Amino acid sequence: MTELRNLITGFAAIGATDDGGVCRLAATASDKQARDLFLREIGNRGLVPRIDGIGNMFGVAIIEPGSNDVVITGSHLDSQPTGGRYDGAYGVLAGLLAVEEVRERCLANPGAARRNLAVANWTNEEGARFQPSLTGSSVFAGSLSLQDAYACTDGDGVTLGAALAAIGYRGVTPLEYRPVRYVELHVEQGDRLEQVSGDVAAVSGAWMTRKISVVFEGDYSHTGPMPMALRRDALRAAARAIEALYVEVARENAGAHASAARISVYPNSPNVVAGQARVWFEIRHEDEAVVVAISDRFLERIEREAREIGVGISIAADEKRSASSLDRDGVEMVRSVARDLGLKIETFKTITGHDALAIQKCVPASLIFVPSEGGLSHNPREFTTQDALDKGYAVLAETLWRMVTARE
Amino acid sequence: MTELRNLITGFAAIGATDDGGVCRLAATASDKQARDLFLREIGNRGLVPRIDGIGNMFGVAIIEPGSNDVVITGSHLDSQPTGGRYDGAYGVLAGLLAVEEVRERCLANPGAARRNLAVANWTNEEGARFQPSLTGSSVFAGSLSLQDAYACTDGDGVTLGAALAAIGYRGVTPLEYRPVRYVELHVEQGDRLEQVSGDVAAVSGAWMTRKISVVFEGDYSHTGPMPMALRRDALRAAARAIEALYVEVARENAGAHASAARISVYPNSPNVVAGQARVWFEIRHEDEAVVVAISDRFLERIEREAREIGVGISIAADEKRSASSLDRDGVEMVRSVARDLGLKIETFKTITGHDALAIQKCVPASLIFVPSEGGLSHNPREFTTQDALDKGYAVLAETLWRMVTARE
Repeated sequence: MTELRNLITGFAAIGATDDGGVCRLAATASDKQARDLFLREIGNRGLVPRIDGIGNMFGVAIIEPGSNDVVITGSHLDSQPTGGRYDGAYGVLAGLLAVEEVRERCLANPGAARRNLAVANWTNEEGARFQPSLTGSSVFAGSLSLQDAYACTDGDGVTLGAALAAIGYRGVTPLEYRPVRYVELHVEQGDRLEQVSGDVAAVSGAWMTRKISVVFEGDYSHTGPMPMALRRDALRAAARAIEALYVEVARENAGAHASAARISVYPNSPNVVAGQARVWFEIRHEDEAVVVAISDRFLERIEREAREIGVGISIAADEKRSASSLDRDGVEMVRSVARDLGLKIETFKTITGHDALAIQKCVPASLIFVPSEGGLSHNPREFTTQDALDKGYAVLAETLWRMVTARE
Repeated sequence: MTELRNLITGFAAIGATDDGGVCRLAATASDKQARDLFLREIGNRGLVPRIDGIGNMFGVAIIEPGSNDVVITGSHLDSQPTGGRYDGAYGVLAGLLAVEEVRERCLANPGAARRNLAVANWTNEEGARFQPSLTGSSVFAGSLSLQDAYACTDGDGVTLGAALAAIGYRGVTPLEYRPVRYVELHVEQGDRLEQVSGDVAAVSGAWMTRKISVVFEGDYSHTGPMPMALRRDALRAAARAIEALYVEVARENAGAHASAARISVYPNSPNVVAGQARVWFEIRHEDEAVVVAISDRFLERIEREAREIGVGISIAADEKRSASSLDRDGVEMVRSVARDLGLKIETFKTITGHDALAIQKCVPASLIFVPSEGGLSHNPREFTTQDALDKGYAVLAETLWRMVTARE
């Protein structure tokens, strides 16, 4: 689809990085630029714009004025600092075109539509600038309060509330319809579809994720004369812990995924043995018992290995995102649409978080994946072929058509 | 000495941190405040102020107008982010009082002085904000050009030249006398004097220091779905290297000191496997062969361990500060002064860099240590008793007296 390709290319130019990727952190100037363009696209296509308090944006197609219900599709326009052009943007832009297509089909089939349809751009899905991630969709679902979301701060101490106000996207026009279903289209970001040459996946649920942020408390000293035996090096303890995580995951040998991707060190001066370090760890597995087993052994080990060098540890944050299931009827609907379109469909769980998982807490939600080349994502070289994108789009549009026209 | 204690207390209030320490990074607002106060102290004591192009400050006592020569004492007023109140400030403030005392003694002994005397505050000794360290003294000694020094940038990309101009300390009045000797008084920052209950040390030279900054190049990917075997985690490679440094130092078992105290990671987002990391390593030993042996083995090992996980390494900076000797006559002079004052004096090499080592490249330089409690420095709890500070001061003042009055 030329139009989908053009839209993706147009948005990829906003916050474009020299290496072909995208850096569009939530509530920054480039996020505002993407939002402004999305708002113009909503208006140009005759959709009704809505922006709620946390900055979620909606474009509503009022295809059944007699109904108070709405089916929503969408994803997010924010990115990681080293983001690709498909992660999030694909779901928003394919959603925009699918809403338009379904509206045309409804106009050609008077009386078919039984509820309204909207496309959404959820605020701060990535959690790169503000933690936790999935902020806009969690506020929408009622699992995170608007006040708590506003209070999240970035690395410079700027709150999300202030950042949204600064770019003019602390909205006052919430979506006034009752959401009844949510469908999200996204690139897989892993390599399972590619491994089996699948066209699309109907995601059935999510792995458990435990996110643990650990603070290592040593003591400052000069890197030169301070006797080695007296040092209490917080960075060394952090380094041991990072390697220990990989070792414990390999030892469990259960296919868990884990990472340590963010670190902060104080004072982080070449001549001062670090007095404090903090590391953000993640451990993921389908089976919660595996996550608990690995993380308990990991925490016990790093506490012991830190203590050996005079460093104490404390847990600054410990977020347990339970393994969860997406709506079963939605999975079946996506599967039958794909089969009807002659596509090869898989069903598996997502390893990473998506807005659909947050929305599922209040509305039956569906998540559709298309392949990511080499499983690469959060990377400028993230890539999905146009053919694969188009197939995903076709499944989305047909699924939405069935959802807005279904008798129940 | 009440006056010395009051001066140290007064300067410790500038850039004071809540935990009792000092954060006075070079060419910041608090450094300016300390410089302004030092300039007032110079003026109030009737010394002639001079500020050179790199911001080194001098207070000159013209005690022999017929001579073009000057003996200089001093140290630095900048600190680490987690600095103590004695590191640097002690040498500048004791130097200020010693210059005043020697001038009084010269006034009481007409004809005794054979050369002039000055106290100095050297710019950016610490190297915490701008690397390399010892900037002002290196420019003074001619081993670093003014242009190169101006071009050093801090973590925000601000140049030292611009930062000095911003605080009004890019001076135009260089010291017009010919330096013939330099003496610096400093806290030891290690525990060797404390271990043998020594009063002062006449430092005979410096250990070799090799400072290697290594860049680890992996690739960005999502921390969730990306298969573990395909990740190229730069932070993991950095973590392995940090631990490996300690292991290699222990294996050599030659008493070397080493550290990894600064790290930068990109993009440093909890959800993106790090594509790049950089770590600043230091390896120090009296014997250069030991430093070379450890660092060669270390580099070979981290290259191999990084390669195992798909990460490449490159050397971003490799600074070799040779083991060096301070002027032998100076050591003897300090030793005889200490003996004459009835103090217990040690002679050993310094493990860490000091302005005296930079100055030695153009002028015979001496360095005097007093004990640091527990060897603790670059730490808010850095401490030296008033009695120990006074003993160091007495040695400095008498040494300076002998240097300005010596026949040759």
